[in-house]
Amino acid sequence: MDYPDALKHLVEVFMRYPGVGRKTAERYAMHTIASFKEEDYDTFKETLERVEHEIKPCETCGHLTDQGICPICKDTRRDQSKILVVEESRDVLVIENTKTYDGLYHVLGGVLSPSNGVGPEDLSIKPLLQRLRNDAHKELILATNLSDEGETTALYIQRLLKDTDILITRIAYGMPAGGNIGYADEITLNKALEGRKKL
Amino acid sequence: MDYPDALKHLVEVFMRYPGVGRKTAERYAMHTIASFKEEDYDTFKETLERVEHEIKPCETCGHLTDQGICPICKDTRRDQSKILVVEESRDVLVIENTKTYDGLYHVLGGVLSPSNGVGPEDLSIKPLLQRLRNDAHKELILATNLSDEGETTALYIQRLLKDTDILITRIAYGMPAGGNIGYADEITLNKALEGRKKL
Repeated sequence: MDYPDALKHLVEVFMRYPGVGRKTAERYAMHTIASFKEEDYDTFKETLERVEHEIKPCETCGHLTDQGICPICKDTRRDQSKILVVEESRDVLVIENTKTYDGLYHVLGGVLSPSNGVGPEDLSIKPLLQRLRNDAHKELILATNLSDEGETTALYIQRLLKDTDILITRIAYGMPAGGNIGYADEITLNKALEGRKKL
Repeated sequence: MDYPDALKHLVEVFMRYPGVGRKTAERYAMHTIASFKEEDYDTFKETLERVEHEIKPCETCGHLTDQGICPICKDTRRDQSKILVVEESRDVLVIENTKTYDGLYHVLGGVLSPSNGVGPEDLSIKPLLQRLRNDAHKELILATNLSDEGETTALYIQRLLKDTDILITRIAYGMPAGGNIGYADEITLNKALEGRKKL
């Protein structure tokens, strides 16, 4: 015995999402049928339609926006001297939420990953170099993740810029707040030790 | 700084799903934007459209179907003497996958839960009693979950039928395969002990 056809398709759509296996996808599909009313289906379909057509990467920094140039790039009160490089648009939102950074961003759209066929030309690296020709930008803060690929990508960008006057920095890595040393992974612990400071 | 409007709405839609918090919803929304092509958006919207209009509870047993009467109820080779009562349509699929049961089903559409305002009239109990007037059905197997609400619902149905000739049974509860007694909860252990058998 099988699902009705439409239900099967909905399960398959949900299974495309990261971390969603068949069971979770089935739960989502059943929840849709059990709880969605006509207006909920309409909202879902219209939202997909709007996201598809309205949301694009910012022409300057690559952050997702519905305005061509994103509000961060447009905001002339922000510190134009710093550009913080992240892997994904989501990282921008997380950093913005901390309200501790007032410079600009650049979203790479991923990390270098030869095994997955992702090379420099697949990331927004050329546009970054282009931006750095503007003298206003003096510091490039590399905030790719602490993974092999994130580190490689940071190193790659650093090397590309080694003959320029731009100050290149990397954000600090170490034990997170609330982290328990007994449960920390080796790489984090290494970074925490490497980055130790005299008290 | 905030999400673009359409993206915010998509996050809100995903947050309606069980177990999906803001972070997961953001991940799903970002994944949509990053990986969906035009045809993927179309598939998603069409599937929602189809699920909304095609999938309905079976007129007999309440199991989700796109055929008015579901294939299980229509299948005259199945054992008409047994009806297995479950909370949700998903339970039917799980039991069907085991290929060990060849009787009929009845989907209650939930459990009795006074604190959530779910009474007998909110579940498919009247239609169940209606079905049981058919002499072909001799055994009612109660397979609601082992929770306070599942137990109450089973008890409620049992009492409603106590003056009839219908054999009422409850599926066995106890330690699951691969379960570790050291990590089992009290209710499961109680049921496992209660249900012990002489070897």
